[in-house]
Amino acid sequence: MPVNEFAARRDCFSNGFGRLRIDAALISGGANLRYLSGFTGSNGMLLVLPGEAILFTDPRYQIQAAQETTCRVHVATGPLLAEVAAAIRRLGLRGIGYDPAHTTCEAFEALHSRLPARCPLQSIAGRVEQLRRVKSEEEIALMRSAAATNSRAFEQATAKVRPGMREMDLAAELEYRMRRLGAEKAAFETIVAGGARSALPHANPTAARLEAGDLVVVDMGAQQAGYASDMTRMLFLGSPGAKVKRLYRAVREAQSAALAAVRAGVTTAHVDGVARRVLRGFGLEKAFVHSTGHGLGLEIHEVPRVGKRDRTRLEAGMAITIEPGAYLEGFGGVRIEDTVVVTARGCEILTPTGKDLRIV
Amino acid sequence: MPVNEFAARRDCFSNGFGRLRIDAALISGGANLRYLSGFTGSNGMLLVLPGEAILFTDPRYQIQAAQETTCRVHVATGPLLAEVAAAIRRLGLRGIGYDPAHTTCEAFEALHSRLPARCPLQSIAGRVEQLRRVKSEEEIALMRSAAATNSRAFEQATAKVRPGMREMDLAAELEYRMRRLGAEKAAFETIVAGGARSALPHANPTAARLEAGDLVVVDMGAQQAGYASDMTRMLFLGSPGAKVKRLYRAVREAQSAALAAVRAGVTTAHVDGVARRVLRGFGLEKAFVHSTGHGLGLEIHEVPRVGKRDRTRLEAGMAITIEPGAYLEGFGGVRIEDTVVVTARGCEILTPTGKDLRIV
Repeated sequence: MPVNEFAARRDCFSNGFGRLRIDAALISGGANLRYLSGFTGSNGMLLVLPGEAILFTDPRYQIQAAQETTCRVHVATGPLLAEVAAAIRRLGLRGIGYDPAHTTCEAFEALHSRLPARCPLQSIAGRVEQLRRVKSEEEIALMRSAAATNSRAFEQATAKVRPGMREMDLAAELEYRMRRLGAEKAAFETIVAGGARSALPHANPTAARLEAGDLVVVDMGAQQAGYASDMTRMLFLGSPGAKVKRLYRAVREAQSAALAAVRAGVTTAHVDGVARRVLRGFGLEKAFVHSTGHGLGLEIHEVPRVGKRDRTRLEAGMAITIEPGAYLEGFGGVRIEDTVVVTARGCEILTPTGKDLRIV
Repeated sequence: MPVNEFAARRDCFSNGFGRLRIDAALISGGANLRYLSGFTGSNGMLLVLPGEAILFTDPRYQIQAAQETTCRVHVATGPLLAEVAAAIRRLGLRGIGYDPAHTTCEAFEALHSRLPARCPLQSIAGRVEQLRRVKSEEEIALMRSAAATNSRAFEQATAKVRPGMREMDLAAELEYRMRRLGAEKAAFETIVAGGARSALPHANPTAARLEAGDLVVVDMGAQQAGYASDMTRMLFLGSPGAKVKRLYRAVREAQSAALAAVRAGVTTAHVDGVARRVLRGFGLEKAFVHSTGHGLGLEIHEVPRVGKRDRTRLEAGMAITIEPGAYLEGFGGVRIEDTVVVTARGCEILTPTGKDLRIV
């Protein structure tokens, strides 16, 4: 990421301070911190003032902080919050923004008890997340790379699938391949579930063996240079029967229709409704038990949700998943998922993997 | 874990309520929740009353919760905290314990605003963590398995090390081997750092290639059945010179001395001081920039710390790491780490890997 991009983000963020009547904002959540500073260490806080920012971290990260950020770096010798509070007092700041969704009660009290009465704490909940919704060209390029890694690892690992392979071994293989292809790690715990277990939307891989006749769901993502991809594809071991084929066709049509509905200006609820309507046509509306998708970027789940009641208007540059599914308890489930970026007239599908049911 | 062990833990925890003047405690942190209930889903809260407990989760985890816990399960159709608050009101409870270190300001407000004035919230910070410090026989058996997996994966992966291998590829191989041997995942992001980078105590693996003449630090852990192991070993590519040999000998002697000092009744500061004294004898006291160890179990870092200023008296059943190190900027560093369980007269070293500098 060009370093001036972080400064531009901080400027954009601090431009909104005027209405809030705060002099500075304290950023504590990992993804928000990384977004505004570039710093990736596990212990850091960022004090953003208009036109300036100070990163607080500990001695373990001194070298790393100097490499990753152009902010002023304060290496704390004691607890970070005590030194943050001392800096706030020293600078004579009045009114500090904090994020109640990323601040524990303990941390709030540690800060609040050290600040003078003229310096109240005020919520900035969701404000950095709002900025993060629309991705820059640089961010989209990183997500494209993550999606490519994800898809290449899927090809390499699924080439090894045979009846008798354990779910957990396929998950391990997928994650290993992503790492070898340049991912820092899996963006979330890889889902591999075969047979009737494919009907659990959030199944963890087990020691169960994939068997002939199994539908297998693979839901995976790569985190690369901080950014996540998310993809779901289905395998079938053997020759699928009419019920599997129909289930697959229904979800595939729902996914295609939802993808076709994505463009700047439409609401997320509209996109969700399109997928739901297709599944209703197959009598599967009750088998679709989750939302059509979610935003993603530095985190695997970001705003907006793409669900029934979500009225966000899509904007060009938003990155979301489109992942309708249908789950038949005791039989199996199908989900098909791509990572896409919204454009003025449609979307760019970042996930390059084909969408035929993959016969193993 | 035998299911009655969870009930025994809850009884032990709620026995301390009397002094707190609360009727129930709300457990939100993942590890504390798992410790008291057995539930491993990502969305859950546990309301512990004397002799009873209610697990709140969402519909995705209905089947899993029924399998994992003997608590009463309440499947919430809306936000968990609203339904927790409704249950507290319905049961007429007065005084609820909450954990400020694992509760965000947002969650606190969501709960507090829904409770009547006669039902104040009171801190139970650290109370479950205190119970978790001393491990049961069942927990120790799980940690022994995690340590065995860790060590076997180390043997398998390091057999592949050659000059020219990238740090990130060795890290990927180590994590893949742990998965194949039964780990759910790496207990933390595996550290592999070669040459001068071995002097960074918290180096992330990079695309740098391991070269002849490199000292290489490998710091890894397995998470298996929820429990973590933690081990650090050193490789050397080629034939080590006198400076490397002396550095290694110093750290190895410090580690041996600290292990020999571990037993129920001594303070963690004493154990730390023993390691530090050995390194001082080698003129390396300033090169030892961190603590000698830390507790571990369901989390990779738990209380107690084994550091200069930590006065915890060790008790039989506590699981800790012993990991002194010495870091010479621009040259390289050495750390040697085992996972151990404190006993009445010493400790059981769970890590089976040998401690000679491994020549590749």
